[in-house]
Amino acid sequence: MSRHAWQRSPEEFAAHLAQVTPWLIEQLQDDRQPWSPCAPGEILAKLPEQPPSSPEPLSTVLEDLQSIIEPGLVRWNAPGWFAWFPSNAHPDAILGDLLASATAQQGMLWASSPACTELETRMLEWLRIALGLPENFREGGSGGGVIQDTASSGVLACMVAARDRTTAGLATSKGGDACGGLIAYASEQSHSSVLKAAGICGIGRDNLRLIPTDEAYQLDTEALARTMEQDAQAGNRPCFCCATVGTTGCGAIDPVGRIADICGDHNCWLHVDAAWAGTAALVPEFRTALTAGSDRADSWSFNPHKWMGAAFDCSCLWLADRSHLIASMSIDPEYLSNSASRSGDVIDYRDWHVQLGRRFRALKLWVLLRCTGVDVLADMVRAHVGFAQQIENAVEGISELLLAAPRTLSLLCIRHTEGDDATQDLIDRINQSDRFAVTHCRLDGRLVMRVAVGTLAVDQETVDAFIAAIRT
Amino acid sequence: MSRHAWQRSPEEFAAHLAQVTPWLIEQLQDDRQPWSPCAPGEILAKLPEQPPSSPEPLSTVLEDLQSIIEPGLVRWNAPGWFAWFPSNAHPDAILGDLLASATAQQGMLWASSPACTELETRMLEWLRIALGLPENFREGGSGGGVIQDTASSGVLACMVAARDRTTAGLATSKGGDACGGLIAYASEQSHSSVLKAAGICGIGRDNLRLIPTDEAYQLDTEALARTMEQDAQAGNRPCFCCATVGTTGCGAIDPVGRIADICGDHNCWLHVDAAWAGTAALVPEFRTALTAGSDRADSWSFNPHKWMGAAFDCSCLWLADRSHLIASMSIDPEYLSNSASRSGDVIDYRDWHVQLGRRFRALKLWVLLRCTGVDVLADMVRAHVGFAQQIENAVEGISELLLAAPRTLSLLCIRHTEGDDATQDLIDRINQSDRFAVTHCRLDGRLVMRVAVGTLAVDQETVDAFIAAIRT
Repeated sequence: MSRHAWQRSPEEFAAHLAQVTPWLIEQLQDDRQPWSPCAPGEILAKLPEQPPSSPEPLSTVLEDLQSIIEPGLVRWNAPGWFAWFPSNAHPDAILGDLLASATAQQGMLWASSPACTELETRMLEWLRIALGLPENFREGGSGGGVIQDTASSGVLACMVAARDRTTAGLATSKGGDACGGLIAYASEQSHSSVLKAAGICGIGRDNLRLIPTDEAYQLDTEALARTMEQDAQAGNRPCFCCATVGTTGCGAIDPVGRIADICGDHNCWLHVDAAWAGTAALVPEFRTALTAGSDRADSWSFNPHKWMGAAFDCSCLWLADRSHLIASMSIDPEYLSNSASRSGDVIDYRDWHVQLGRRFRALKLWVLLRCTGVDVLADMVRAHVGFAQQIENAVEGISELLLAAPRTLSLLCIRHTEGDDATQDLIDRINQSDRFAVTHCRLDGRLVMRVAVGTLAVDQETVDAFIAAIRT
Repeated sequence: MSRHAWQRSPEEFAAHLAQVTPWLIEQLQDDRQPWSPCAPGEILAKLPEQPPSSPEPLSTVLEDLQSIIEPGLVRWNAPGWFAWFPSNAHPDAILGDLLASATAQQGMLWASSPACTELETRMLEWLRIALGLPENFREGGSGGGVIQDTASSGVLACMVAARDRTTAGLATSKGGDACGGLIAYASEQSHSSVLKAAGICGIGRDNLRLIPTDEAYQLDTEALARTMEQDAQAGNRPCFCCATVGTTGCGAIDPVGRIADICGDHNCWLHVDAAWAGTAALVPEFRTALTAGSDRADSWSFNPHKWMGAAFDCSCLWLADRSHLIASMSIDPEYLSNSASRSGDVIDYRDWHVQLGRRFRALKLWVLLRCTGVDVLADMVRAHVGFAQQIENAVEGISELLLAAPRTLSLLCIRHTEGDDATQDLIDRINQSDRFAVTHCRLDGRLVMRVAVGTLAVDQETVDAFIAAIRT
């Protein structure tokens, strides 16, 4: 059979797959320097300015991949990667995502991919059960779950839905004045995506109240209650509150139940951001602390692409009442109308987020959950928390270091007793080790070294070496 | 070396890759029924309700993939797929995306992946050159390009930037009243994402003026000028206008240059949505019609994941002045601060879109553009347009059928002379053929069959068979 130059035969594709396999498995090996040594502009300067007119052999591209691109990679999957949060790409998820690519699905509608739609519904239900999330998020009732690309998109979608619930939809239809007086709430330690969403959705960044936190960096619920009450009395409209389960800075877990009480007094939407820590709810002994109060949340999100290994991007969002989100996000142009949608018997996930098109992300969750199994993923979380405990114990034995906040799960915030300069020296020394990567944050104005244990590859030897490194 | 149960050895991953290869290449074969035969709930019912506790062998998952998931796939890559628009996953792009998965990059910051950042900058520049887009979108000046997940996210980001340009940032900081009187514009044939974005960003859906179109379904510029002028005189603030280059319904190309004149009179942001048709600008003889006036647009977007084969998701967006977008989307929490960002010498693409995290999408563009080459992709577009011309010629020879709008590139709108019922019968008959998929739209209230030629696999034999099918 003759082929056009833009087509690939199955045999050719199979040969290409075999050809890239050595490079792929090299990426999964464990001996890499986490930070890139590249200077700004270094990679760009090595890439030709003009696009290629004619086809080049894959071998040439792979050579450039090694010589030009590889030095610019940051090894988020290195065993000594303790920076920011893990962004694990488990080989099972990589495989599932490859299968998804080959299917070329576009899951905007049930009709455009029943498989993408219904596997997603089941995967969200599997994860709801595996994390011990409440029944009201279950599909089939008034709730349900959906995959968003990132938690940032999820919090924006929920804030829009909340805004519309408070204004009976006027914020979406009328905009402008209809958004006037709407107020959102989150703690000073909440993720920057809440602030970004408030700016995007017409509530306004100035109308996000960043509530102070207590000595454990958890949202101060008395301050929240007071602020919300003041807003209500001033004629403002509390409409959205984000509680964080595992803050980015130090992993603090806001008291969701108490926050739910306060939100309930004002009919204010309660969103729970468990982007990082949510994965730990796979572990029964960690679950209660992470999910308490979630039965009174309007929405709850976590990122399987972080700790759980689902490979960026994949963020899960559950709603207690999906109707608000759907009302805000629905569009129904004639060119997308179809009998399945009209029947009301199917889910069209395009109505659950900002985007229209959607990738078949459920497939990588399916392959990961089945080939690895929930119990094994829970064991991984336990092991990582155990590693963090070892580091915590070590820090407690080093007189120059102290924990700047209570350890949460596998996240530690460490500072030097002599102050910020000494902490910065520690951070720099660790990052220059060529084996470990850490980042920083500030707590009460003081610099701290964040140590987020959690890559797939981290092991006892790496943890021992890290402890030795912070000791010297 | 001992491994934990959640880890995979490189050898195991290589074996898994080899194991899935037969299924992958089967997906690239050409004899599949495009639409899924599944009924609502059929797939869901076959998937166990409880998540798997223990690991299962990949072979079991692959069996279920074939028996449960495959029937629910819609074959967007079938040769006879003429529905909606193509969503091509070229094998080179699939390969590039697999490489990206293995690198586990998270490109929110330059510092979090210099390779992801700088390859993206170069790929956007390659595509800008390949499409013949103007110099003011070039990186290095005041403009620049960025990959968004979808055109929906891109238009939202631009609308927010436009809103903030008009309000000097007050829409983002103050929200509510600061968005009062802001008006957006697009034609009645514009994509639903414009309406969705207006609802999300606080402008309000009611404040999107859907301007009538002329007999070729192009935006009526006199009506636009009149409406914008009326708004300005009424004290409203025209802030965003979307011109469509290749509408979803029938492929109409709005007169961008004339629209730019009108926008210029009111300092209104001009966004060009070329999501589908943009790929055809790879072809020099089609380019002028697609890019005329773009040198006066504020933003311009197209989706390589549609016609060009970059595999969903990958949408490119260029800005003439990136500062507005960055001002609207920037957040700068301490935990993400780093010396590279502070230096001002690098791009942090998190500030160019709604999301924070970002996948290494540039890699699939790189592999696709190099292994296939720009000239070959242009040849593909030429061939597809040629196929559509053949269908057009055939329709002109069938007395019961007529073109409901002028053909644009490879998109045809066909209706039956006897009216909607007969057109619906035609659509149903084509879709029940097990070989072809078409969708519909309405033009001037009348039902039409949309035929969007453009999958990688479409060939002369398929086109001949389709012509035979519409003849009978």
